[in-house]
Amino acid sequence: MTDHLQRFREQIRRPDDDIHQVAVERQLRLTKPPGALGRLEDLSCWLASVQGVCPPRPLTRARVVIFAGDHGVAQAGVSAYPAEVTSQMVANFVGGGAAINAMAAALDASVRVVDMGVNVSNEALPPDVTRLKVREGSGNIAVEDALTAAQTLQAFEAGIAIADEEIDAGADVLIPGDMGIANTTPAAAVIALLTNQDAAAVTGRGTGIDDEAWMRKVIAVRDAMRRGRPLLGDQLGLLGSISGADFAAMTGFLLQSAYRRTPVILDGVASGASALVAHRISFRCARWFQAGHRSVEPAHSFALTRLQLEPLLDYGLRLGEGTGALLALPILRAAGATLSDMATFDEAGVSEQSADE
Amino acid sequence: MTDHLQRFREQIRRPDDDIHQVAVERQLRLTKPPGALGRLEDLSCWLASVQGVCPPRPLTRARVVIFAGDHGVAQAGVSAYPAEVTSQMVANFVGGGAAINAMAAALDASVRVVDMGVNVSNEALPPDVTRLKVREGSGNIAVEDALTAAQTLQAFEAGIAIADEEIDAGADVLIPGDMGIANTTPAAAVIALLTNQDAAAVTGRGTGIDDEAWMRKVIAVRDAMRRGRPLLGDQLGLLGSISGADFAAMTGFLLQSAYRRTPVILDGVASGASALVAHRISFRCARWFQAGHRSVEPAHSFALTRLQLEPLLDYGLRLGEGTGALLALPILRAAGATLSDMATFDEAGVSEQSADE
Repeated sequence: MTDHLQRFREQIRRPDDDIHQVAVERQLRLTKPPGALGRLEDLSCWLASVQGVCPPRPLTRARVVIFAGDHGVAQAGVSAYPAEVTSQMVANFVGGGAAINAMAAALDASVRVVDMGVNVSNEALPPDVTRLKVREGSGNIAVEDALTAAQTLQAFEAGIAIADEEIDAGADVLIPGDMGIANTTPAAAVIALLTNQDAAAVTGRGTGIDDEAWMRKVIAVRDAMRRGRPLLGDQLGLLGSISGADFAAMTGFLLQSAYRRTPVILDGVASGASALVAHRISFRCARWFQAGHRSVEPAHSFALTRLQLEPLLDYGLRLGEGTGALLALPILRAAGATLSDMATFDEAGVSEQSADE
Repeated sequence: MTDHLQRFREQIRRPDDDIHQVAVERQLRLTKPPGALGRLEDLSCWLASVQGVCPPRPLTRARVVIFAGDHGVAQAGVSAYPAEVTSQMVANFVGGGAAINAMAAALDASVRVVDMGVNVSNEALPPDVTRLKVREGSGNIAVEDALTAAQTLQAFEAGIAIADEEIDAGADVLIPGDMGIANTTPAAAVIALLTNQDAAAVTGRGTGIDDEAWMRKVIAVRDAMRRGRPLLGDQLGLLGSISGADFAAMTGFLLQSAYRRTPVILDGVASGASALVAHRISFRCARWFQAGHRSVEPAHSFALTRLQLEPLLDYGLRLGEGTGALLALPILRAAGATLSDMATFDEAGVSEQSADE
């Protein structure tokens, strides 16, 4: 454990500043007014800097990894859906029927589903699910730890291993997705603790709960925060105390992606909470991330502010699965294409801006 | 002329309300919480309604049509670039070196370039440019008409013919692009007149002009508005007086697209100005349009408000060419894919929301 944390703290670097500067200068020579592509120009330079090459390579191997897990806090009545929906949706993902599948097919990405802690046996899941379950459902974080220390470490290391597998298999951009009934409750608790907010300020409506359920959820978040507060200096302890195996795995996944210099598009509040923990371990890791979409969950905006990330889209999505992040993928691709495929003024024989204006 | 205008006024219909309702109901049966896809759900239902079929078909034949023209008002010193850049960029488009080309290749669209009034002879343009020039450069709208009545009609009808050609060839979504040094000046004048704004309120920095040039541009816009004001009730007269052949063609193109029940993604301030004129001819036409991107040109926001369109993106682009609209295409595709490819609760065996919450 200490080995990994120390490696992340010391060895995660910033994206390549020199290449970034090369990209900025190249943008100025392309056949368009300086800055006329707005935020696309910043994105294109970021892509070059994370790839370490200018012009950047096209993103042809985008991979969504959905981390699934059940959350004992669902017992507190914090979700509009019964807990068995988690395993049903896992089956839906591998069956290709979920929103993330439809969008991935339309946007040229592929989807992998990893069970970190769904509350059913391995035998009850379809064969195409990656089986890395550390326990069947986490503890109810309002009253008990989500995971033991050993389970937390196991999940964290599983996330690292998944990032390695995907990057070794050629993934050039990674998108962490999430599935788990009640998972916005641990996400809100983690984010509130790490950004010093009140429970009521971070707690949202999740998949669409009523006022009664929202009040129960605020109480659960507050109780979890109370349990987690002494662990603010111990990131893995915090994950084990008030998140779940899916969050611990996502945190390892994000850190290893940054360590392996692989760009990540973050999705909603679950990956945002994991990114925030990752950021406590290595503040440089967030330089490898873009925020795809601003979740309607209020916790998410606090996380993004701390991470200094401005989301690319704000469409009122509140689904998870990686959908908000995936939606931003073509924008990143288009940005990269301008830097790699546009002609320069010299190449195209186009006049540059008048010197006197 | 009267025939076309009367046809557009009387025969452009709203998208199919019944299909829209079918789509809304289908979204509720898909395996996700109701409304969890946010604005994507609205987009998907709109796509079904304009196609007249639910679930909608995938958008496989997206076509960008760039309307190019020179503007005599460039003589007033309202642009940061010399006027010859228009013809140079036209060559760059057919050579594949412009931003729109790079993005179209990345986002699976194709690009056509139509010369409506570039200030060079037909012989001076590359062979792949569609030659529909009505004159070499428009008049300086600050002091004279952009086009004669006959030229205006010719350009308007050319735009209609291009829409027909593209739709007959199988285009399932159309994106109007623009190229013309100084074309934000007529765009601002048209929008200011039709939305009752002052010249200074609508006039922007175009491709990046300094304060002196901006003041010259405000004066040109104001003078054009004074010339155009008596023609507020005569839309083709207005186009001929203070826009240009590219705008007249785009207006015909937009109206014919709506008439042919073909969805359009609008780009920036040039297509916004044309859409506003089209909207004066047939207010229903705007129901066939989405706004891809909010231009930094202040005129654009006034046009969008009048058209009741909320742009899908706001990235600070100020390039034209269709780039802002094209960037929104994959979002529309992803929205359509959710409606066509996701499983329903019944199909996937996923539990619906608890009845008591």
